[in-house]
Amino acid sequence: MINKTQPRTLAGFMELMPNEQILFEQMRQKIEKTYQKFGFLPLDTPILELSEVLLAKAGGETEKQIYRFEKGDTDISMRFDLTVPLAKYVAKNYGNLSFPFRRYQIGKVYRGERTQKGRFREFYQCDIDIVGDGELSIINDAELPSVIYNVFKELGFEDFTICINNRKILNGLFESLNQKENATEILRIIDKIEKIGKDAIIEELEKIEVSKESIEKIMNFIEIDGTNDEKLQKLQDLDIENETFKLGLEELTQVVKYVRLFEVPESNFKVDLTIARGLDYYTGTVYETFLNQYREIGSICSGGRYESLAEFYTDKKLPGVGISIGLTRLFYKLNELNIIKAEKKSVAEVLIVPMIEDLTVPIKIANDLRSNNINAEIFLNDKKLKAKMKYADKLEIPFVIVVGEDEVKSDVVKIKDMITGNEKECQIHNISHLIRLIEKE
Amino acid sequence: MINKTQPRTLAGFMELMPNEQILFEQMRQKIEKTYQKFGFLPLDTPILELSEVLLAKAGGETEKQIYRFEKGDTDISMRFDLTVPLAKYVAKNYGNLSFPFRRYQIGKVYRGERTQKGRFREFYQCDIDIVGDGELSIINDAELPSVIYNVFKELGFEDFTICINNRKILNGLFESLNQKENATEILRIIDKIEKIGKDAIIEELEKIEVSKESIEKIMNFIEIDGTNDEKLQKLQDLDIENETFKLGLEELTQVVKYVRLFEVPESNFKVDLTIARGLDYYTGTVYETFLNQYREIGSICSGGRYESLAEFYTDKKLPGVGISIGLTRLFYKLNELNIIKAEKKSVAEVLIVPMIEDLTVPIKIANDLRSNNINAEIFLNDKKLKAKMKYADKLEIPFVIVVGEDEVKSDVVKIKDMITGNEKECQIHNISHLIRLIEKE
Repeated sequence: MINKTQPRTLAGFMELMPNEQILFEQMRQKIEKTYQKFGFLPLDTPILELSEVLLAKAGGETEKQIYRFEKGDTDISMRFDLTVPLAKYVAKNYGNLSFPFRRYQIGKVYRGERTQKGRFREFYQCDIDIVGDGELSIINDAELPSVIYNVFKELGFEDFTICINNRKILNGLFESLNQKENATEILRIIDKIEKIGKDAIIEELEKIEVSKESIEKIMNFIEIDGTNDEKLQKLQDLDIENETFKLGLEELTQVVKYVRLFEVPESNFKVDLTIARGLDYYTGTVYETFLNQYREIGSICSGGRYESLAEFYTDKKLPGVGISIGLTRLFYKLNELNIIKAEKKSVAEVLIVPMIEDLTVPIKIANDLRSNNINAEIFLNDKKLKAKMKYADKLEIPFVIVVGEDEVKSDVVKIKDMITGNEKECQIHNISHLIRLIEKE
Repeated sequence: MINKTQPRTLAGFMELMPNEQILFEQMRQKIEKTYQKFGFLPLDTPILELSEVLLAKAGGETEKQIYRFEKGDTDISMRFDLTVPLAKYVAKNYGNLSFPFRRYQIGKVYRGERTQKGRFREFYQCDIDIVGDGELSIINDAELPSVIYNVFKELGFEDFTICINNRKILNGLFESLNQKENATEILRIIDKIEKIGKDAIIEELEKIEVSKESIEKIMNFIEIDGTNDEKLQKLQDLDIENETFKLGLEELTQVVKYVRLFEVPESNFKVDLTIARGLDYYTGTVYETFLNQYREIGSICSGGRYESLAEFYTDKKLPGVGISIGLTRLFYKLNELNIIKAEKKSVAEVLIVPMIEDLTVPIKIANDLRSNNINAEIFLNDKKLKAKMKYADKLEIPFVIVVGEDEVKSDVVKIKDMITGNEKECQIHNISHLIRLIEKE
């Protein structure tokens, strides 16, 4: 007897049961189809990259989480996002790409975070980016909320909000307050307002020695409220004499205008001046998206505008704008909160259950269904009818056709709808009738 | 100025240009759709596994190729195939699965092979397996050639052959020749007949001290020819008094019978007694598939029957049968030999080119097309018409709609077919007419 190894999966790695996997795949496909609807091109980069290339820019927290190792003489790292591989790809293939380069990539990325519930070390990111050569119109920043809107509508959501801000407005404000050096730190603090609340924000700002007046102005700023147009007007009314601020406000105004032209309903987007996206990376428009009933999930789709995609690889200026959906975490959270349900347990639409030894007819039925693009399965193991029906029940295959001697003799089968229990008769050789019966239901 | 890192991709890792990626995705999807047509369930296991679990069975050549590393205290390996993760999954979730468990998995696997042209260290495998609980009818072995047939038909091939053999026939033959100890070695040698030819086979058999008489019998055996039925008859006529041989012949006869019922044309499959599939793993039916015009590519889809999927993890007997397509290598080879062509360069079917400042109308057209499931892109950067048309040309987007002041005024646009050069007029607000014009072409 061989000593058995306990079959187990690494902590922090999602592995689904078939019914969950079917649902996950449906979600993945809806995202992909929507990305394609906007003309984005597919990309698939390796999961492994040279550490020197992948980590050209990384540092700090990110670098600690990297899965990095040597194989032979080669220092290799697993990708931790899809943006750095995109930067490498665009820099490498610059001469052969058409700009603006619009690409989507859906793939697994790796971060060795501390394991905790709902945090994954291997997870899917679903990214799109639009990368310009030297320049990229601000209207692109307005098209992405339309993609986000269509994705979540397609996924069956209604009550979600795409929050939009512009980093230049924030940066300009801090410049005007002589807080330029503190800007990144202040942004990090503001970004937490959702989590820690107003008072804690003020406290943290005091800690880094922002003056009372400045704190007041910052708080007044992030508390600007009203409709989108009212917010834009109030920003205007602040009369801040700073070029960066003005440019940011102009961009945000343009984005709001065009988001409307892209037919994102007013109820599904808003100007939110507290959105900063902690990273230094973003330089203009930033996005976050929330399910309004489930704010606790956090942002389900985020992104923004960056000045230069690939500055670590090339002198070319490649401004871009992109968004990312962390599908693994999203799926986990939606499932946990019972917002989605893994109902479908089978890919087969029809199960054919032979009750005779000669399988000519059962196989013929399966062949015919399959060549008419209906997913069909034959139960091939030699079990009792009860065991066979139990299989059909457990997998919840929508239709079952039992084929016994009587059926073969009479050339008539019954198609049983496993949900309603209804049975309908059909001539075995009238396959188009059979298909109509299945598709109609 | 920052020092630039040279953007490069690891050797042995495929990274495609967008037009190639579109073609690759099409192939992947056709394979997936066909797998689903036969009712196989999706599975997605992690790329990383505990080394102890993943390598419970491995050894020798395989183990040397593994990407293995430590992260913290954890000894981790990257999967080198999709079968071991399946074994782990089935053993782990045995109580929650319905048997026969029919699953497909399409994913990347990793082998640190020596880099050479056409060999990849990261590559896609497209696998299906049918796993029984305790038993699994031989008819399953006949259904898989039907899947293979449908996959390659779907991929556009006609002239391919699925070669089928049964390891029990080979093993029984060797037992009857008192060569049981040498069996694995002899199988390895026979397996190479395609590559090294008859004489070299005899030479190698002599080297491992197989007797002259035995070599003669082996060579007579592997040279059995004729139609499938003739071959089966000739095997019968050998009158080999060995139970394993007889069982194997019976199984092969059954498989041939049912492959016909599954409507695989006689011209697309054959009994091939030289197919052994080197691995010890397989115990019954074995398959290889060849493009007849391009035998040099080697087998494009292989697999077989195994006694027990997960014996390293569980006492349960889990017999199975499966096949695998190495898509990355297949794509590379087909592309290299110009058998496939990456013709489509865009996902968008329509490019809208605005020639006016007010984008209301161009965006409206895009919105309408997208909500009618037509992939549409708007050229948003503020370039000259020439630059915009160059973009359309380069991406070969099938239809272009230029929207200038005249078009907006007259409510009529021209839809230009970029292949024929034909232009057709359409009212801007008659979106269903617009769609018909695009879909009809």
